[in-house]
Amino acid sequence: MKKGIAQHQLGETFDYFLLIKSAAKGVASNNKPFLTLLLADTSGEIDAKLWEATPEDEALFQQGELVKVQGDVGQFRNKPQLKIQSIRPVQPTDGVQATDFIAKAPVNKEDLMERLTEAIFEMKNPSIQRITRHFLKTYQEDLLNYPAAVRNHHEYVSGLAHHIVSMLNIAKQLTILYPDINQDLLYAGIILHDLGKLKELSGPTSPSYTLEGKLIGHIPMMVEEIRVAADELQIEGEEVTILQHMILSHHGKSEWGSPKPPLVREAELLHQIDMMDAGMNMLNRSLKKVGPGEFTEKIYAMDQRSFYKPTFEK
Amino acid sequence: MKKGIAQHQLGETFDYFLLIKSAAKGVASNNKPFLTLLLADTSGEIDAKLWEATPEDEALFQQGELVKVQGDVGQFRNKPQLKIQSIRPVQPTDGVQATDFIAKAPVNKEDLMERLTEAIFEMKNPSIQRITRHFLKTYQEDLLNYPAAVRNHHEYVSGLAHHIVSMLNIAKQLTILYPDINQDLLYAGIILHDLGKLKELSGPTSPSYTLEGKLIGHIPMMVEEIRVAADELQIEGEEVTILQHMILSHHGKSEWGSPKPPLVREAELLHQIDMMDAGMNMLNRSLKKVGPGEFTEKIYAMDQRSFYKPTFEK
Amino acid sequence: MKKGIAQHQLGETFDYFLLIKSAAKGVASNNKPFLTLLLADTSGEIDAKLWEATPEDEALFQQGELVKVQGDVGQFRNKPQLKIQSIRPVQPTDGVQATDFIAKAPVNKEDLMERLTEAIFEMKNPSIQRITRHFLKTYQEDLLNYPAAVRNHHEYVSGLAHHIVSMLNIAKQLTILYPDINQDLLYAGIILHDLGKLKELSGPTSPSYTLEGKLIGHIPMMVEEIRVAADELQIEGEEVTILQHMILSHHGKSEWGSPKPPLVREAELLHQIDMMDAGMNMLNRSLKKVGPGEFTEKIYAMDQRSFYKPTFEK
Amino acid sequence: MKKGIAQHQLGETFDYFLLIKSAAKGVASNNKPFLTLLLADTSGEIDAKLWEATPEDEALFQQGELVKVQGDVGQFRNKPQLKIQSIRPVQPTDGVQATDFIAKAPVNKEDLMERLTEAIFEMKNPSIQRITRHFLKTYQEDLLNYPAAVRNHHEYVSGLAHHIVSMLNIAKQLTILYPDINQDLLYAGIILHDLGKLKELSGPTSPSYTLEGKLIGHIPMMVEEIRVAADELQIEGEEVTILQHMILSHHGKSEWGSPKPPLVREAELLHQIDMMDAGMNMLNRSLKKVGPGEFTEKIYAMDQRSFYKPTFEK
Amino acid sequence: MKKGIAQHQLGETFDYFLLIKSAAKGVASNNKPFLTLLLADTSGEIDAKLWEATPEDEALFQQGELVKVQGDVGQFRNKPQLKIQSIRPVQPTDGVQATDFIAKAPVNKEDLMERLTEAIFEMKNPSIQRITRHFLKTYQEDLLNYPAAVRNHHEYVSGLAHHIVSMLNIAKQLTILYPDINQDLLYAGIILHDLGKLKELSGPTSPSYTLEGKLIGHIPMMVEEIRVAADELQIEGEEVTILQHMILSHHGKSEWGSPKPPLVREAELLHQIDMMDAGMNMLNRSLKKVGPGEFTEKIYAMDQRSFYKPTFEK
Amino acid sequence: MKKGIAQHQLGETFDYFLLIKSAAKGVASNNKPFLTLLLADTSGEIDAKLWEATPEDEALFQQGELVKVQGDVGQFRNKPQLKIQSIRPVQPTDGVQATDFIAKAPVNKEDLMERLTEAIFEMKNPSIQRITRHFLKTYQEDLLNYPAAVRNHHEYVSGLAHHIVSMLNIAKQLTILYPDINQDLLYAGIILHDLGKLKELSGPTSPSYTLEGKLIGHIPMMVEEIRVAADELQIEGEEVTILQHMILSHHGKSEWGSPKPPLVREAELLHQIDMMDAGMNMLNRSLKKVGPGEFTEKIYAMDQRSFYKPTFEK
Repeated sequence: MKKGIAQHQLGETFDYFLLIKSAAKGVASNNKPFLTLLLADTSGEIDAKLWEATPEDEALFQQGELVKVQGDVGQFRNKPQLKIQSIRPVQPTDGVQATDFIAKAPVNKEDLMERLTEAIFEMKNPSIQRITRHFLKTYQEDLLNYPAAVRNHHEYVSGLAHHIVSMLNIAKQLTILYPDINQDLLYAGIILHDLGKLKELSGPTSPSYTLEGKLIGHIPMMVEEIRVAADELQIEGEEVTILQHMILSHHGKSEWGSPKPPLVREAELLHQIDMMDAGMNMLNRSLKKVGPGEFTEKIYAMDQRSFYKPTFEK
Repeated sequence: MKKGIAQHQLGETFDYFLLIKSAAKGVASNNKPFLTLLLADTSGEIDAKLWEATPEDEALFQQGELVKVQGDVGQFRNKPQLKIQSIRPVQPTDGVQATDFIAKAPVNKEDLMERLTEAIFEMKNPSIQRITRHFLKTYQEDLLNYPAAVRNHHEYVSGLAHHIVSMLNIAKQLTILYPDINQDLLYAGIILHDLGKLKELSGPTSPSYTLEGKLIGHIPMMVEEIRVAADELQIEGEEVTILQHMILSHHGKSEWGSPKPPLVREAELLHQIDMMDAGMNMLNRSLKKVGPGEFTEKIYAMDQRSFYKPTFEK
Repeated sequence: MKKGIAQHQLGETFDYFLLIKSAAKGVASNNKPFLTLLLADTSGEIDAKLWEATPEDEALFQQGELVKVQGDVGQFRNKPQLKIQSIRPVQPTDGVQATDFIAKAPVNKEDLMERLTEAIFEMKNPSIQRITRHFLKTYQEDLLNYPAAVRNHHEYVSGLAHHIVSMLNIAKQLTILYPDINQDLLYAGIILHDLGKLKELSGPTSPSYTLEGKLIGHIPMMVEEIRVAADELQIEGEEVTILQHMILSHHGKSEWGSPKPPLVREAELLHQIDMMDAGMNMLNRSLKKVGPGEFTEKIYAMDQRSFYKPTFEK
Repeated sequence: MKKGIAQHQLGETFDYFLLIKSAAKGVASNNKPFLTLLLADTSGEIDAKLWEATPEDEALFQQGELVKVQGDVGQFRNKPQLKIQSIRPVQPTDGVQATDFIAKAPVNKEDLMERLTEAIFEMKNPSIQRITRHFLKTYQEDLLNYPAAVRNHHEYVSGLAHHIVSMLNIAKQLTILYPDINQDLLYAGIILHDLGKLKELSGPTSPSYTLEGKLIGHIPMMVEEIRVAADELQIEGEEVTILQHMILSHHGKSEWGSPKPPLVREAELLHQIDMMDAGMNMLNRSLKKVGPGEFTEKIYAMDQRSFYKPTFEK
Repeated sequence: MKKGIAQHQLGETFDYFLLIKSAAKGVASNNKPFLTLLLADTSGEIDAKLWEATPEDEALFQQGELVKVQGDVGQFRNKPQLKIQSIRPVQPTDGVQATDFIAKAPVNKEDLMERLTEAIFEMKNPSIQRITRHFLKTYQEDLLNYPAAVRNHHEYVSGLAHHIVSMLNIAKQLTILYPDINQDLLYAGIILHDLGKLKELSGPTSPSYTLEGKLIGHIPMMVEEIRVAADELQIEGEEVTILQHMILSHHGKSEWGSPKPPLVREAELLHQIDMMDAGMNMLNRSLKKVGPGEFTEKIYAMDQRSFYKPTFEK
Repeated sequence: MKKGIAQHQLGETFDYFLLIKSAAKGVASNNKPFLTLLLADTSGEIDAKLWEATPEDEALFQQGELVKVQGDVGQFRNKPQLKIQSIRPVQPTDGVQATDFIAKAPVNKEDLMERLTEAIFEMKNPSIQRITRHFLKTYQEDLLNYPAAVRNHHEYVSGLAHHIVSMLNIAKQLTILYPDINQDLLYAGIILHDLGKLKELSGPTSPSYTLEGKLIGHIPMMVEEIRVAADELQIEGEEVTILQHMILSHHGKSEWGSPKPPLVREAELLHQIDMMDAGMNMLNRSLKKVGPGEFTEKIYAMDQRSFYKPTFEK
């Protein structure tokens, strides 16, 4: 397999296809315009400069476009930077497509969908089951495509579904170890907890925040969605309130965006499992990038900690 | 006018009607049951003990009942306590009714309703106007009866409407002083901001929190209500999102229950006007109870501060 | 089975054996001495007063003694209180013993020991295995008897071992779901994390804090123990440091007593599993005491939250 | 009217007069000295570089000087930067003066003075009136010239008086809505609250902090001034203490520089009105710079929030 | 020497003179009035109850009176309480006076005064010396009588001067060890730092807070006093500002009442020496009350810590 | 004496020996490698760039090497930067050695050692004395060479011993002023408190953190060392626990790395003396660099404060 952009060392030349994740125009000290591009393939990302950019360049090289690039891997302020020698839009004859250059979950969509369906199938409480199934049906396509977050953890295609399925796997084991847990509630909370992100974010790749996302946020948006769904399905009863509470409280504390803390056992567990799987996703991927005896980069969403990989790890 | 319970001094005998605000059974050190009652009229409240209570007493003297009481005003742990000598339920011939014994707003419902109607009438944006009018129509009765809060400020019958109307009055002047303010938005935010309390609290008098109130809270509940109302009225557009944002952010900070801070000018003003009117209501009522040169009791919702009334105040 | 003290209602008479968990002398308003006893059986505890206590009473009724008590269940400041009518020390002919009156883990010691042994047996890293086995051997008796804490969670005989074994069960599943986890490290961290409590607390039943516990605390004490053990076993290498780090960091934050936050993947997981199992222990036991539709008492170690048991729970 | 510096786009050439707000010398990578100037007119400010500056340049182009500049509007780190082609000091024949290039309050000094005089005239308490009038007389000139702050809000000529007069306008309406308010106290508090800034800041334009400002701060400085004024006017009585308290507490909390929180009703209102007018000043000016559907820049003094201007605003 | 009230054990009878530190009227459950007195001699304090108090009792037994008391030392809520059997005002023939019953500094006033004079005499900067001498002269009597605080540390007659002199002693040694220290500044700061308390507190014995104390506080009050003194002495120059800054900043942080943190070396030292001497005073007195191997009571002003006295201490 | 690097002004040429404190490779925008060196002599440090560095340069110019440098003092982002014209390794004939270019304590090692020995000699408690002497003997060499910290205070050769001896001097005076202090404990605490740094840091010059330092930290490491030493010396008794407690608590608060706050008088004093001497070291050195009437640079470890040197200081 071709070496990805993230595997290139300082001084090496890169010559292959990359996806433009963002593009911004600047003016150099010589008063000539240039483009700052963020280019990516599945191995990672790199900042790049296209000096003396023409208006045509500006029109061609925009976010979401796939390009063929040749350039040298240099460095600017301790970060790699690609100095572009030549760049052109991809052509049909290149035989490549954007989706080949986007990071994806390590599990395919069919398997993710199967596991979600299975979890809903196992539910015994009809109100909880119907509401959950309704959301899966309504949002299936987006759910299987969106990342779980803009950055930090599961920030890749199908990341949200991957995160949900990993959480369901933990939940399944915990209900065996602690049989008092209401599995229906916990499963439903896990499947629904972040669905508000499908409206908070603008799309599955290179997402930004929507106006509703900025002014309301995915948590209250999803609480509202459950009400609307329950009305539509003509479901009444405490199950609706409890599900809304689980969404509302799943960030754990008001400072983290939950106006109520978890006040139901399964809501507390949902919060803990969410933290655990997000943490493992960040930790494992960061630790993979370093060798034994080294510390990882600072992980932003884990209090900026650098983690150590012991020398006795393989 | 008859002297109220709060005007009775230590050692005086009280002999008139009072409303039972809460009732609880206890067992004395001699193992005999007794009742602890919280009794009230419009002048205030007093704790009372009915010693050696019979099962009949327990059945008769419950929350919400109006009773004729004779007893002595004593003291327990620095608070007045009524030692009941005799007590009986009110009779039709007594010619008194519960509503005469409940504190009310100093403005009558008709005037409050008129001011609310007027504010909605002044609105120019049809979406904002229709949504606000819809809520006023749907909740008119409760809105004119509920207190603004269980305790702290405007905690009396019609307190919520009184609070809203006072805020509208401040808002009207501010829109004159700062003409950039969108008056429609500000008025609508003020009228709607606490309507979620109509479902968060169990009723207009002696309210407790409902299950939804405890697990969801009035802020997300009202955000959801606006969505449902807009769907019903078939109103689309940014107005709905902005109104939801105003409700969501009106407590100002996540620690105070708003998952988003105010991010629209009128949302910021709504928060400030809410604090200002609540503060003036607490301050004025506390300062009325003390003379010049004295400090008020600690006001819980104002950081436990005691306020000073200067000697040069009349 | 005989009804325990916690199952007695207000006004009922209790007449059976109880264990004295604490005893304190007071002087009544009539200047006569009295004893305040905390009495317990496996169902729970009750405060009790022995009025007009003689010096003999004081000598007889001390912490740890088993007594036969007859008395009436009354109430003082909203808590049950036993008014003792008669009390005497237990006699050999009564055929009861203190251990029958102490709460115990719901799993027996043999099973706990077997699971611990099994976990150590599964370890592949000889340094980690030898250190862990050394501690299990040295402290086996205490480890199988001590509670996990003075209060809050697993505060019963064998509570520490019960907590450890529950954590090992979670850990086992997580290592299957996330194969990157170093199982040896995680298992060792779980088994050792709270062993410092064996020296921080004075004993397995009704424990108080030792001087070392108060001035040093179980975390630094155990870090030190690992060093001493490694020296004794002549084990060198990074494993010792990593194990010390896991103990040191397992409370997660400096405010919670860990001078370093977790900086190794398995240290982070140890912290999360510890919180999860402690939480489930507190939650399940609190929720058992209430019926559907009710809230639990405030749980001190979970931010004083009251949890709700939905009406649709059986 | 001539287009101001802030209206020039990237790439345009500017050729007109500007005021030097600050000047600093640097040494370029070629070891030649250069000047970094902050240049301004009433439309706004721009950073500028004068490369290869001579000692004469350094002597001529200092803070407070008015200059004629020709240069190109470029960009450096996402901020506009003027590359100076030619620059010379202003000459008498240019017919321009520094005050034409400084931002001013949107109300003229005479109107501000009239409103201040009127407020003092309305006061009924002679002690409060005499102290307030004394300060107005003593500091009239500076008061009508100083900004209200170095940055954030009302940071322009006459900004302090503009802020005071806006606050008086709010106060006037509030005393009508809440007649218990002591208007004399509130008016005096508003007029005096920030007068300490006349000594905390070095002057009305491009102010820096004085030594007293840095070591004592405007709040204790003004508390002290009131004492000195009262002594001079031979005024005694609680009014002096209450006025001092109002100054002392007007930042609301110890973390914000008030060693005592407001403990008098009018002190609390002063704090709220101060926040409200400062907020409206910042919000309105920031929102003016963006179009409907856009977010403002982050407003530093409002918790770094970006505010949204709805699309339905004109 | 007669055994003081604090040396009496539970059950013992007390029969001697005591000073009334506070007196409050209450009404018992039998509706009869009683007096709650706080009685003291130099050994300590005790709560006392005078049941069935007559109006004459109420008139006689007020704060500041010296009384002859006979009563039994009982206990109420874990604190000693004196049940008064008989009580009468002191008579001339008793030959005792109030000052014999008030705790005093362990150093006499003459020695304290001498040390203060000496410190001022050593000063070389005339401005600093004159201001400090001015205050010593003006407040000499009060300074030698007042406590350093209402409670916590040096809360006895001459406590303020005792605290100042102890701090001067530390300062003297530090100026030898760190010769860069400006001794004049440090000495002046120490002598003046708490003089504002002479106006913040109502008097030298059983002090309460004055209105100015409550609304302004001793720190801004003393900053103001220095300005007034400097004006009177016609002293100008930076010394005045620096002395004001030292007073203003000596609590170290805004949360502790200093609107500016120490920004001058000697201001920082003043803060540290103040904390050190206050701490030693509290610690030594608390540790004196316990034996080796015991913990002290919780010391409120030291973060509620209980300190341990090692068994190897004599 | 030759002018040090820190005394060179912008634009001057430097031509003398310097020590390389750190070296890092970069790639310039022209894709040529360069070296960023941090160069130092006893007067201070400077950043330097060696452009177009060859692989030989990279091999020669590494951390710890002494070099002869010729270059111009320029400026980059407001900090001085040396543009290297020529650089070569030092030669034997140069007659200079690395230790001449490292900042050292202003007291020599013999005097420091003498004072340490004297303090131990004065101890009366044999357990405390033997433990302290043991550590002095074991770590004498390192103790006399290490800095007290990587940065902030006493960050020079012999800094740790210098800090300890300054603290002993303060302690000596305090034990005279407060005779209750246990001098043995306080002296031992001072000598031992930071010895864990000898293992936390990699060496006496240009130290970095060891793995143990990062994962355990010097405080728990030293608590452990005391246990090991006591075992080796066969010392038992409370002295060991108290010494461990003093080390553990000497940072004062859990947020600052002490899992237990000081709970013994001498532990509290140790913390205060540590803060005082560290503060004086930072303050005096910062103030030396500025003239009267100026503010120091922000001092990082003193809450980023800039301190003022009064104009009346010489």
